[in-house]
Amino acid sequence: MPEGFVAGGVVCGVRNSGRRDLGLLFSEFECTSAAVFTLNTVKGAPLLVTREAIQGGDVRAVVANSGYANAATGQRGLEDACEMRALAAEALGVEAREVAVASTGVIGEHLPMAKISAGIEGAAAELGRDGAGFAEAILTTDTRTKEAAVQVEVGGKTITVGGTAKGSGMIHPNMGTMLAFLTTDAAVEKGCLQETLSAAAEHTFNRVTVDGDTSPSDMAVLLANGVAGNEPLTAGSADYPAFAEAVESVARELAKQIARDGEGATRLVEVVVEGAKDETSAAMFARTVVGSNLVKAAVFGEDANWGRVLTAMGYSGVSFDPDGVKLWFGPVKVFGDGEPVAHEEAEANAALSSGEVRITVRLNEGDASAAAWGCDLTYEYVRINGSYRT
Amino acid sequence: MPEGFVAGGVVCGVRNSGRRDLGLLFSEFECTSAAVFTLNTVKGAPLLVTREAIQGGDVRAVVANSGYANAATGQRGLEDACEMRALAAEALGVEAREVAVASTGVIGEHLPMAKISAGIEGAAAELGRDGAGFAEAILTTDTRTKEAAVQVEVGGKTITVGGTAKGSGMIHPNMGTMLAFLTTDAAVEKGCLQETLSAAAEHTFNRVTVDGDTSPSDMAVLLANGVAGNEPLTAGSADYPAFAEAVESVARELAKQIARDGEGATRLVEVVVEGAKDETSAAMFARTVVGSNLVKAAVFGEDANWGRVLTAMGYSGVSFDPDGVKLWFGPVKVFGDGEPVAHEEAEANAALSSGEVRITVRLNEGDASAAAWGCDLTYEYVRINGSYRT
Repeated sequence: MPEGFVAGGVVCGVRNSGRRDLGLLFSEFECTSAAVFTLNTVKGAPLLVTREAIQGGDVRAVVANSGYANAATGQRGLEDACEMRALAAEALGVEAREVAVASTGVIGEHLPMAKISAGIEGAAAELGRDGAGFAEAILTTDTRTKEAAVQVEVGGKTITVGGTAKGSGMIHPNMGTMLAFLTTDAAVEKGCLQETLSAAAEHTFNRVTVDGDTSPSDMAVLLANGVAGNEPLTAGSADYPAFAEAVESVARELAKQIARDGEGATRLVEVVVEGAKDETSAAMFARTVVGSNLVKAAVFGEDANWGRVLTAMGYSGVSFDPDGVKLWFGPVKVFGDGEPVAHEEAEANAALSSGEVRITVRLNEGDASAAAWGCDLTYEYVRINGSYRT
Repeated sequence: MPEGFVAGGVVCGVRNSGRRDLGLLFSEFECTSAAVFTLNTVKGAPLLVTREAIQGGDVRAVVANSGYANAATGQRGLEDACEMRALAAEALGVEAREVAVASTGVIGEHLPMAKISAGIEGAAAELGRDGAGFAEAILTTDTRTKEAAVQVEVGGKTITVGGTAKGSGMIHPNMGTMLAFLTTDAAVEKGCLQETLSAAAEHTFNRVTVDGDTSPSDMAVLLANGVAGNEPLTAGSADYPAFAEAVESVARELAKQIARDGEGATRLVEVVVEGAKDETSAAMFARTVVGSNLVKAAVFGEDANWGRVLTAMGYSGVSFDPDGVKLWFGPVKVFGDGEPVAHEEAEANAALSSGEVRITVRLNEGDASAAAWGCDLTYEYVRINGSYRT
C-alpha cells in the first residue's frame, strides 16, 4: 500500500460465509480523487452517492461491503447508502462527503444496517498498513483476493501505485468496472487524475469479460494523497507518462486477475488483435472473441475450434475482410488468407491446455492493436449461477 | 407439406453419427422464391451461391447437408458449393440456377465431395411427400426435427404453408437465421414473397437466442409454387394479411422449437416486454434479457433472481426509467416501481420449474410490445460445446 493509506476488514455477517464482508480504506491525508462507473442504466445506490461526492469534491476514504449490492432497492436503498457513509465518516473522524461507498452482491435486497454499523466500528478499530483484510471484504464469488502494486520515479520521488479489486461474475464492464480501488502517494491534480483513471480503465477493466453481463455496481476509484512529496502532476508534467503507465499497469494486472478468477474458470484467455485499422476496432474484435460462449467452451474442452473465433469476429459489428485474417492458437497458425492452414491438431489443442491461453488475430488493415481478457466457460460457472442466491 | 413439393434425406456419411445428413427439397412446378441470410461478415460458401441465385432469378429446389458448414473454406469451398448445386440440378432435371445450397456443421473443413455426390443421387431416388427425411438431414446437435404447417383461405382457395428448420447452437440470428425452409402452394408475387419472409424472420427467427453467437451459415428460404391456384398475391391483395400471418405463424412455431431444443436446454424461456416506446426497443429488451447468461443460469437453477433481468435491461443499449418497471416470473410479481415486491420466494421459483418459463416486463413508456425466445444455460451446453468436434 502507498504511504499514508491504511485499511481494514471484518466479518460483519451480511454474507453467511464467515468471510470478511465489510472493509474500510482510509488516507491519513487529504486526497485528490477520481472514479469511473458502470454505464448500466440501472445503477446501485452506493454508486449514486459516490459519484456525487467525487464530482462535487474529493474523497479520502472508502467503505465497502459484500453480500448485498444495495441496487434496485428504491428510496430506502439510497438512505441506507447515505447512512453507511455517515457511519464511516464518524468512525474515521472525517466529513461524510469525504467517504466513497461501494456495495456488491445480490441485487434487490435491503442492507442489514445493524450489522453494517457494527462492522464499520470493528473495521475502524482494525485499520493498519496491511490491505489484505479490505481486499477480502469486497469479494463475492471470487476465490481469491486481487492485489497489485508498482513503484516509479516521478519528479525525483519514488511513488507507489497500489490497488485491489473484486469481480468474478456479472463481469462485462462498460466504462466502470467491478469494484476496484487504486491508491497512490503521488500528488496529482484532480482533472489529470480522472483522465488517467479513465484511460487506464478503458485499456484494462473494460477489456475483461466473464459472462457478458454488465453490473449495476461497477465502480473504480483512484485516490492520490501526495505523501511522496512530488510536485503535483498534470497531463503536461515530464513524468506524467510514467505515472499513467504505472496506474495502467496496476489496473491491467487487476483486470487479468479478475479474468483468471472468473466464476468457474480454469484458464485465463488473452485475445490479441493486431493489424486493425484503429484501436476501437481492434478492441471490439478482441472483446467479442473473448466473450463468445462457444470460444469459451472450446477453450474449456481444449478444442482448437478456430472457426468460432472467426465467426465471433464476424458478428462483432466491425466490418473486415475475412480473406485477410490470420489466426494462431498459442504458437500454432490455424488459418490464413481465407483458407484453413494445415497444422497438427494435437499441437493446437495443447496450446489451449495451459493455465494461460493466448489467441492471436492478425488483420491486414492497419497498425492498431488491442488485447482483451476472459476465461473459459465451465460446468462450475453453471453450477455457481444456478444456485448463487441459495 | 404443401401440394407440389417432395423431399428426401439419406445417410451419406459427412457426419459419423449414422443419422441422415444430406437432403433434397423439390417443387415439381416453378416457384417464386425469397431468402434472408446471416449478417455475419463471415459468410459460408453455400450462402453466397444461394444468394446470387435468388437475387438473379428463382429457385425451386434446395440441396442441404449437415456435418460441415463449408464456411471459411476459401476458393475450393466455393467450387464445392457450385458442384453440389450442379449435381443436385442434374439429379432433379432442372437448371443449376434453380437450386439453393445450404450446409451446416463444423466451420473450416472441406466437404467430402464423393460422399456428397453419392448422397444427392440417393436422396433424389427417395423423393416423396413425407418431409421427415429432409427435416432430419439438416440437423447437427439438434435432438429433434422441427416442423410446422398451417392452412388458410386465400382468394377462395385453401393454401398451405409448411416449414422445417434446424438450429441448436451458435444461435443468435441476425437478419437471416439458422437453416429454415418454408414452402407454400400459394401463388405469390416475388417482391411480396420477399417482404413477407423478411418481416416474419424479424419477428420470429431474429428473436431467438441460444448463446449469442451468430452463425456464418444462417439462411431462411421460402418457396411458393402456386399449385393452390389462387390469383398471385401482392402486398395489396385482400387476403395478403392472412397469408403473411400464416407464414409468420409457421416461422414463429419453428423459432420456438429451435429455442426449446437449444444445446443442452431443459426449458423454453419466453420474455415478453410490454409498454415500450416502440417495437425496436421492446425487442432489444426482450432479446437482451433472454440472452443473458446469468438469467439463463438462474432459470436452470429455478432461482427467481429478478435482479439479473433488470440488470440485463440496463445494458441492452436502450435507455429507460428503472422506477417505471414491473417484473413477473410466471404469474408472480417480483418488482414494481423501483422497489422489490414482497412475494413468496417458493412461488416465484416454482414459476421457473415448468418446461415453458415466461418472464414478463412492463414499462410505462408507450404501447409497443415484443417477445423473444431462448433457453436455460446448463451443464450439458458446456459439455456439448467443449467437445463438439471430437
